[in-house]
Amino acid sequence: MYDFSDRIKNLNGTATREILKLTKRPEVISFAGGMPAAECLPIDEVREIARDLLSGENAVSLLQYGPTEGVAELNERLIAYLETLGLKAKPENIQVVSGGQQGIDLMLKAFVNKGDTVLVENPTYLAFLQIAKTYEANVVGVDADADGLVISDLEAKLKTYRPKLLYVVPTFSNPTGKTYTVENRKSILRLCEKYGAVILEDDPYGRLRYDGEEVPPLKAFDEHGSVVYLTSFSKTIAPSLRVAVAFGDKDVIRKISIGKQGADVQSPALCQMIVAEYLKRGCFDKTLERNIAVYRERKDAFLNALDKYMPSSVRYTRPDGGLFIWAELPQDIDAAAMLPEAVERNVAYIQGNEFYADGRGRNTMRLNFSSSSVQRIEKGVKILAELIKTKIGE
Amino acid sequence: MYDFSDRIKNLNGTATREILKLTKRPEVISFAGGMPAAECLPIDEVREIARDLLSGENAVSLLQYGPTEGVAELNERLIAYLETLGLKAKPENIQVVSGGQQGIDLMLKAFVNKGDTVLVENPTYLAFLQIAKTYEANVVGVDADADGLVISDLEAKLKTYRPKLLYVVPTFSNPTGKTYTVENRKSILRLCEKYGAVILEDDPYGRLRYDGEEVPPLKAFDEHGSVVYLTSFSKTIAPSLRVAVAFGDKDVIRKISIGKQGADVQSPALCQMIVAEYLKRGCFDKTLERNIAVYRERKDAFLNALDKYMPSSVRYTRPDGGLFIWAELPQDIDAAAMLPEAVERNVAYIQGNEFYADGRGRNTMRLNFSSSSVQRIEKGVKILAELIKTKIGE
Repeated sequence: MYDFSDRIKNLNGTATREILKLTKRPEVISFAGGMPAAECLPIDEVREIARDLLSGENAVSLLQYGPTEGVAELNERLIAYLETLGLKAKPENIQVVSGGQQGIDLMLKAFVNKGDTVLVENPTYLAFLQIAKTYEANVVGVDADADGLVISDLEAKLKTYRPKLLYVVPTFSNPTGKTYTVENRKSILRLCEKYGAVILEDDPYGRLRYDGEEVPPLKAFDEHGSVVYLTSFSKTIAPSLRVAVAFGDKDVIRKISIGKQGADVQSPALCQMIVAEYLKRGCFDKTLERNIAVYRERKDAFLNALDKYMPSSVRYTRPDGGLFIWAELPQDIDAAAMLPEAVERNVAYIQGNEFYADGRGRNTMRLNFSSSSVQRIEKGVKILAELIKTKIGE
Repeated sequence: MYDFSDRIKNLNGTATREILKLTKRPEVISFAGGMPAAECLPIDEVREIARDLLSGENAVSLLQYGPTEGVAELNERLIAYLETLGLKAKPENIQVVSGGQQGIDLMLKAFVNKGDTVLVENPTYLAFLQIAKTYEANVVGVDADADGLVISDLEAKLKTYRPKLLYVVPTFSNPTGKTYTVENRKSILRLCEKYGAVILEDDPYGRLRYDGEEVPPLKAFDEHGSVVYLTSFSKTIAPSLRVAVAFGDKDVIRKISIGKQGADVQSPALCQMIVAEYLKRGCFDKTLERNIAVYRERKDAFLNALDKYMPSSVRYTRPDGGLFIWAELPQDIDAAAMLPEAVERNVAYIQGNEFYADGRGRNTMRLNFSSSSVQRIEKGVKILAELIKTKIGE
């Protein structure tokens, strides 16, 4: 009846989303989400900070309109924070955004015309695919291996499609949990520069490292303004504050700011200032350390349970950080078709094909280890393994 | 150097915006903004509410991911709030948005393809014109008079352009301060239904009534789902909470929700719950009454000063509410060209042509009366009148 725009008329909630609504039942052990554990959210720190801010001298400014670019106190802290990651930003290089998601949206708004090609790792963050649809982009997947992107395939696709943009989650990737090697990062950067594609480096998980050595962001190697680096506090402080930052060349950041002016004027000052104070008071490193211990234990428990229960024909990643493990079942097993059965047995995951630009990967699944207790992880993996065994016929 | 999208490559901050940065000097009396008075922002109430929420049983949920549609407690309160405006909403009819601005953005996202025509009152809210550019819409202005839109011109333009959408601010309009009559509202609705255009009714100021009788929203007359009603708490509680609500037919709201999923996942739960509690505790009506008294005094002071100082060839509206007065200077006086001179004399306004879809109105200006004290209003209007007199040659 309504004459909706082309970009949105065929978009409906995904089938997966509907099934996953069932996982709200408390008896369901959900490996589907990508949420921080409720017990890791720093409510005591936020309560104290909010109280101090709202009693402070400048409390009224928390309620009034403020600059689109971000509250000055936060921007100052963000520059210091980026410095700890080896990234040197000036004020004109950063824009506060309402979560990493808004960063992606504004980046596509700034670069992508209808029909423009955007490259992604295959598989990639599923929300990116959804947002790209709202810009009517042509999304092309690049093959990947344990080191990162397959460089020959990246070059072939840069040549063929002349894409505007490459989107990657190179550290503890969503969905695979994988980290690109330094060499791989450098090759990606060199090739994208050669073919004139900008890179959107999405890094929501980088600080959640449980094992192994730090790898510098792609942006750390960027000398020509080819990379926009996006990092969010959703997984390290709290998702519902909706605070993240985009860091890039000033000309790009300016366009992102103009996009944000139109989109929502500014992010709420109270949320911005909570993050600023959280960083200022040193809560960040302290809470992070505490949370890393929790997540490391869960990740290890998850891998142990997989080792113990899964049939040997099921393969999975062993991530050093982040929130996700990626599993590949034998080719003929359809994880999408199996999901309702799993939910019936009170276990949930996300079917892997949702993360592929081309709908491949029906035998894959993404498993989140952050939001369930060790006990429920053990139990859930066992149930899932048993279900998979019935499919394999073991 | 960067290959930006068509929608954004020619968008830069407006010249006005640059000039207005000068108005941050404390000696400048600014009639340019559209901000609530700092002394009207309910900091005591928000402090108390935030403290209670963050100490409450469900405090952790304020930090965790929540539903895109809006926190359930807020949505319940919004339905009750809309009821007080004569609007009957069910849960599937509403979507919480991050300020009215995001409501506009998501509405255009849902309806407008590149090149589609959108009708607006001439003049209209300048940010709407900016957002429409990011959707590459063809914006056409409809003539207006004291009663609202000129119905014959509306019909002619509906016929000629077959627009997707009409955008109006029918109560205490931005920029003119005018309110459409009931008869005018009904005619607009009837014609838009006849020609299949949806109506976006933006109502950020409706509750700020200082004189005269309430006029029901256009949406109150809508029997066929033709109107999406947007109302924000930016002007009645606090801008920086970024909480507003879109109310419309469930099919439209569904598309707006899908758009918001991509744009920023959700609005911050803390901000949503502050508004929910604010409504629940009865702070809303109490603070509104207090603020209305402040704004009424300022509006009257502004009109008195205009009556006293302005040359008779300058005409201006006498609004019953909202935040703005609209002034028309003699045809040959260019308010845009005069702005730097005014700022030099420590008075600022916004040049009226910024609000016209077709760049007309260079002899007009928007004057905000909410953010200056009565004393500064008197002084600022006098300075402005003297400057205008030098132009007229009086």
